[in-house]
Amino acid sequence: MTGATTSTGGSPQQAVAHRTGETVLTVVDHHGTPLADTEVTVEQTRHAFGFGNIGFDFLELANGELTGSAAAAAEHLADLYTDVFTTATLPFYWGRFEPERGRPDTARLRRTAEWFRDRGVALKGHPLVWHTVQPDWLLGLPLDEVERLQRERIRREVGEFAGLVDTWDAINEVVIMPVFDNGDNAITPLARAKGRIPTIRMAFEEARATNPHATLLLNDFDLSSAYECLIEGVLEAGVQIDAIGLQTHMHQGYWGEETMLAMVDRFARYGLPLHLTETSLVSGDLMPAHIVDLNDHQVPSWPSTPEGEARQADEVERHYRSLVGHPAVESVTYWGITDAGAWLGAPIGLVRSDGSPKPSYEALRRLVKDEWWTAPTVLRTDERGRVSVRGFRGEYRADVRGASTAFGVGRAPGQQELVAPAG
Amino acid sequence: MTGATTSTGGSPQQAVAHRTGETVLTVVDHHGTPLADTEVTVEQTRHAFGFGNIGFDFLELANGELTGSAAAAAEHLADLYTDVFTTATLPFYWGRFEPERGRPDTARLRRTAEWFRDRGVALKGHPLVWHTVQPDWLLGLPLDEVERLQRERIRREVGEFAGLVDTWDAINEVVIMPVFDNGDNAITPLARAKGRIPTIRMAFEEARATNPHATLLLNDFDLSSAYECLIEGVLEAGVQIDAIGLQTHMHQGYWGEETMLAMVDRFARYGLPLHLTETSLVSGDLMPAHIVDLNDHQVPSWPSTPEGEARQADEVERHYRSLVGHPAVESVTYWGITDAGAWLGAPIGLVRSDGSPKPSYEALRRLVKDEWWTAPTVLRTDERGRVSVRGFRGEYRADVRGASTAFGVGRAPGQQELVAPAG
Repeated sequence: MTGATTSTGGSPQQAVAHRTGETVLTVVDHHGTPLADTEVTVEQTRHAFGFGNIGFDFLELANGELTGSAAAAAEHLADLYTDVFTTATLPFYWGRFEPERGRPDTARLRRTAEWFRDRGVALKGHPLVWHTVQPDWLLGLPLDEVERLQRERIRREVGEFAGLVDTWDAINEVVIMPVFDNGDNAITPLARAKGRIPTIRMAFEEARATNPHATLLLNDFDLSSAYECLIEGVLEAGVQIDAIGLQTHMHQGYWGEETMLAMVDRFARYGLPLHLTETSLVSGDLMPAHIVDLNDHQVPSWPSTPEGEARQADEVERHYRSLVGHPAVESVTYWGITDAGAWLGAPIGLVRSDGSPKPSYEALRRLVKDEWWTAPTVLRTDERGRVSVRGFRGEYRADVRGASTAFGVGRAPGQQELVAPAG
Repeated sequence: MTGATTSTGGSPQQAVAHRTGETVLTVVDHHGTPLADTEVTVEQTRHAFGFGNIGFDFLELANGELTGSAAAAAEHLADLYTDVFTTATLPFYWGRFEPERGRPDTARLRRTAEWFRDRGVALKGHPLVWHTVQPDWLLGLPLDEVERLQRERIRREVGEFAGLVDTWDAINEVVIMPVFDNGDNAITPLARAKGRIPTIRMAFEEARATNPHATLLLNDFDLSSAYECLIEGVLEAGVQIDAIGLQTHMHQGYWGEETMLAMVDRFARYGLPLHLTETSLVSGDLMPAHIVDLNDHQVPSWPSTPEGEARQADEVERHYRSLVGHPAVESVTYWGITDAGAWLGAPIGLVRSDGSPKPSYEALRRLVKDEWWTAPTVLRTDERGRVSVRGFRGEYRADVRGASTAFGVGRAPGQQELVAPAG
């Protein structure tokens, strides 16, 4: 149809064709007359697909708490982060966010969120309701008081961060919540008394009422039939879920594409977007298969190894390819940018503790910013003044004679007129 | 309070005190004058607690299809059965009940149900909806046709047997139903398309509409959080369940009281009666622990052994003691009277293939008809003409001067007047 098109990769993008779209640009002069044979430079500026990671490592940097080489190292890590990731998950664990009752860490988290936003990274808050990492001062309070405080805490965080953090894990790990027995907490008895679905309703209704524009997730590590049954009950009860969160911590080894996609298929049948919220793959020894609660595995040292890093890079690439290839998946969030301070001390980072990128980082960057990305490309308009831009859905920019126009490539074919400055 | 009481066992009944009750009988003459120092013989005639077993082995006998030694052996087995069990689960597996479309085995099942009823045994039908043992002729039909036929089949069976079979497994094994992959069937696609809860609603609403007095169960072998989540969703959706069915096939070994009661506690918190619908314990080698679907274990021969029989007897006693000791449990159904033709060829029967009772049969009989039972007992009324009968809840009979009166011992203290014939 149009004389000039661009398409990054071609064949590799076939496997993920549902991720691409097409927008036709028509270059006109200030009279509206199409300009044939005119040079247009197009480039992608952002992915529509969510490539997320945790933002836990940047609170000090964002709040100016680092100096000297520590600050420089953090800035370097930040550059690696923002080059690949479009979304940061921020820690709102109640017990760490408000260890002393009435003194929440709001200001510090706000500065962190702003710091990310200023670098083009969207934010997600994790989690509003969970039975783990609870404040001590909640223990021993009567259940109705716990519920009142939990509701207030949801409204407070969602309200304070509205416009800055508009995606939330409204509630985390509900399947196990009422029967959780790996540590005293005030939320398990509440969930047991209320029941799972009323507890979920509490989380979603409070968050929704406070920020009607928020994207609210149910998130779980239990991907068995239990989660299916829970979701079906929640949907049947009329609680509005915006996306289903699926954790995939793979400290015990990559599950493989077949198992992963079969799991995704099971949850895709509810017609809701799927967010792979917590993905980790180790670049060292695997955790023994007999461990059930990953938190129970404590080792003094868990190094990243050359063989482990090669395996991790291969698995990261396969994992992302397969998930980006599934139409129901809207985002994949990796659970760690660096090994320094990683959960369980596991070498799940994409960057080593010394700040050097692992092969997994390079592999993921190559997918996100090369194979699935439209770098600046020079096109020429056809006789009707048109160029067709076909690429991964997201935000783009077109430059004509030094004037820049933003446009999008979406699910439906798009059209946009570019007014060229007088040449 | 009263001068004369009876109580079988005393101390052993303390552990199951919530199972007992008290009824005070007052013996009067035909003028209504209390008769002091008068002999009353009381005896229990039926347990309120449901001691069930499958009735699958008696279809031929009940329908007069046996002769000679086969008939005699079946009669002997029937005597053992009716001496202990108060409820029989009858097989309504659709694929066997109606292997040829339009020719259901109604008459034969009805005679079997009547045969049991005439022997004082109540009936339960199993199951109205299930994805296994499906008729071949259902395969390949469009889903809406499958649903229509499934609904008709529920109404037909529940309607035809109302008054005779008033307890039903309305639906069986829903947790796995939409993701079941161990055999083509028409119900899995239906459950997948409808969702678990609407499928459950279909089963309960059709059965309820047909027989409003029926006791309708949800029944499952998956006793994990998945079943909890399913139940919570069903209750939240407003589907009325009369009892929660819990399968406990223990071919891989007795779970022990602690595990069993912890499981029962998890399901007791919904405030519904619990029926242990399918219990089996082997009196031979255990099935290897790595088998997930018990149906996958096929062995040419699986004998009952002396050591196995001793173990089974011990486990049967512990199992029944612990469950009868839990207030939420209303019935325990054992899954097999005899090893002959037992599911999977496993020696789970309480009677050997040759018709001789195993030690487990004797152990269970001793509990049900001795320790937890009031045999004929002679009491004398006090100066106000009264005797107090304290025992396991159920039906009783009192004889005074050759006149017999039925009475009950229930949860609440009871009183009843017996008019003695002129002496």
